[in-house]
Amino acid sequence: MLPYDAVARALLPFVFYTSHPHNPANDRGPRAFAAFDATTPLGPFTFPRRAVGSNDVKIDIKFCGVCSSDLHKVGNEWKNSKYPMVPGHEIVGVVEAVGPDVTKFKVGDTVGVGCLVDSCLTCGTCNSGLEQFCEKGALLTYNAVDKEGVVTKGGYSDHIVVRQEFDVRIPDNLPLAAAAPLLCAGITSYSPLRHWNVQPGDKIGVVGLGGLGGMAVKFAMVFGAHVTVFTTTSSKVEFAKKIGADDVAVTSDPASIGAVKGLRFILDTASVCHDLNPYINTLKHDGTMVLVGAPENPHPPVIPFGLIFGRRSLTGSAIGGIAETQEMLDFCGKHNIVSEIELIPTQDINKAYDRMRQNAIEGRFVIDNASLKQ
Amino acid sequence: MLPYDAVARALLPFVFYTSHPHNPANDRGPRAFAAFDATTPLGPFTFPRRAVGSNDVKIDIKFCGVCSSDLHKVGNEWKNSKYPMVPGHEIVGVVEAVGPDVTKFKVGDTVGVGCLVDSCLTCGTCNSGLEQFCEKGALLTYNAVDKEGVVTKGGYSDHIVVRQEFDVRIPDNLPLAAAAPLLCAGITSYSPLRHWNVQPGDKIGVVGLGGLGGMAVKFAMVFGAHVTVFTTTSSKVEFAKKIGADDVAVTSDPASIGAVKGLRFILDTASVCHDLNPYINTLKHDGTMVLVGAPENPHPPVIPFGLIFGRRSLTGSAIGGIAETQEMLDFCGKHNIVSEIELIPTQDINKAYDRMRQNAIEGRFVIDNASLKQ
Repeated sequence: MLPYDAVARALLPFVFYTSHPHNPANDRGPRAFAAFDATTPLGPFTFPRRAVGSNDVKIDIKFCGVCSSDLHKVGNEWKNSKYPMVPGHEIVGVVEAVGPDVTKFKVGDTVGVGCLVDSCLTCGTCNSGLEQFCEKGALLTYNAVDKEGVVTKGGYSDHIVVRQEFDVRIPDNLPLAAAAPLLCAGITSYSPLRHWNVQPGDKIGVVGLGGLGGMAVKFAMVFGAHVTVFTTTSSKVEFAKKIGADDVAVTSDPASIGAVKGLRFILDTASVCHDLNPYINTLKHDGTMVLVGAPENPHPPVIPFGLIFGRRSLTGSAIGGIAETQEMLDFCGKHNIVSEIELIPTQDINKAYDRMRQNAIEGRFVIDNASLKQ
Repeated sequence: MLPYDAVARALLPFVFYTSHPHNPANDRGPRAFAAFDATTPLGPFTFPRRAVGSNDVKIDIKFCGVCSSDLHKVGNEWKNSKYPMVPGHEIVGVVEAVGPDVTKFKVGDTVGVGCLVDSCLTCGTCNSGLEQFCEKGALLTYNAVDKEGVVTKGGYSDHIVVRQEFDVRIPDNLPLAAAAPLLCAGITSYSPLRHWNVQPGDKIGVVGLGGLGGMAVKFAMVFGAHVTVFTTTSSKVEFAKKIGADDVAVTSDPASIGAVKGLRFILDTASVCHDLNPYINTLKHDGTMVLVGAPENPHPPVIPFGLIFGRRSLTGSAIGGIAETQEMLDFCGKHNIVSEIELIPTQDINKAYDRMRQNAIEGRFVIDNASLKQ
């Protein structure tokens, strides 16, 4: 725990956030929704954003996707939550102001911000386009401590200030609300499909059909792969087929997993604890299973023979670098790919979380940030 | 359980094996040492080998390495043991006879047999040189059931008959006893180092310093890698340095693992249950940890974040194909690489097993099969 946290925690009730309901008289910055601890509902909040620096872009946030990691972090499942927390790392909006050194963007541009807002940009890992694995530590869009000691705050707010290197351009032809989830769900599924070179004719699997799984199916279709979706929820079979899945295995019947054979690649988007071994056994030799969801508790042990016989790999992937995120967005623009979404006002966020916990959402909730101004 | 097993089990005491001590009057085939159940010491045994078929090579076995998987199988740790079991899949010897269709070998050639004695040789996997992953199932050298329903028997015997495609040539310049472990320990470490392309300057780790670990260090040295050995046994530090390790971490102090950073590749040869997570955390981004040992019980759960952050892989590897085994042997001939060994008569096998259980062996036990003729 940094000293900052202790001080901030003591001062916050007085300095930073307003009592419910929102009182504009107390405004010190953007209107937002925040989690104040691990269990109580999110509510209105205001806080100061930094002034626009010479290299900064100030974004009027139009929409923000709701990621399952928001749920994990709000609930302190990964044991590193800092409150009050303003979640949201699937941010799209319009440039409202730029600093004098900004060359990539101008006022009025449609831009996005994903899970990262800073990294050293000098280490070998950053230089190879993997800012998310920066050797000095990348700065996450919310719930992280920046170099001034301030806890970052995300897209459940009406504006954000981000250095130009971490903003990306949204293609004009994409509907903006449905493009928001591309900034996390999109890149998190696109990057491993690209890295492990999913190609026409490949038999692949996608585990879970939330925001990430849906994007993975859409990308894999365009890449020409044959996609089997594994879902716990029989009610999602129709949705899976609608967005392009070739086959669907409903895993409430475990035998349905064993019936699938010869996959070259599996993207596992499920962020709840589950047994990986039946999935590993669906892989052909040299096949790869990629985890992109992290559960609160580890999955059951992996059986070494499942990896040894067939030289199969279990691996993971975390979002993607900034250049790859731009590449993904351009790819989406070219192929008209966006997320399936359900648009909500910020005020409905707690209900949305409940439905996510019940796995009762097809695609992604997206917040209409205009609701913060009501 | 195949019907054959039940019948064989009932008949075996009368038909196949002799009582201790060995009685030459009962000979029906090769003299051998066998395990008769999971707990009693191995003892003398005779059994029929098949006649030399048109495509077969009959080998006078000179030496046979003792692999830790012999221990696992003799003890029925993998729950598929068939008794009486004649272990041994690190076989070297001299061709004694060949069938009329054999073109690869002639009488007097020095040859070896590893873990495989048959596969379909027609499936795509066999055709890509990965007979060990044959889609119809590869036939293991011992404790497997061949297409005639006979349980295969390995190299703790004075001769063996193997189809020519599964014999390999031993380079003349290698000392024969010390070449025996190349047939399993050698190829099992060589194949993953090659597959994951270990190169000059790579920082790699080798977990465990038994027969496989020792071979891995020797290969990695020739490949030009910087090798850190992880061993539980402080008494092995000197041995590790002697065979070429650059660094040694003695893992009885867990902090010694955490002090290692930035590995690109780890070969984990330990076949006892251990926590993989500290090793995964020594990998740089896109690093790979390869399991080649299989414990009786699974390792503790793998923490997904360790794979997700850094896109690290946990994978496995099983021996290598026949062409790659020949490539490895030729490489060993060129670079004068053999195993560190301790030669024993077959009669000492139970004592050797005890020392292996206590991890009190540097390198590999190798049986001098001439002892079977005494």
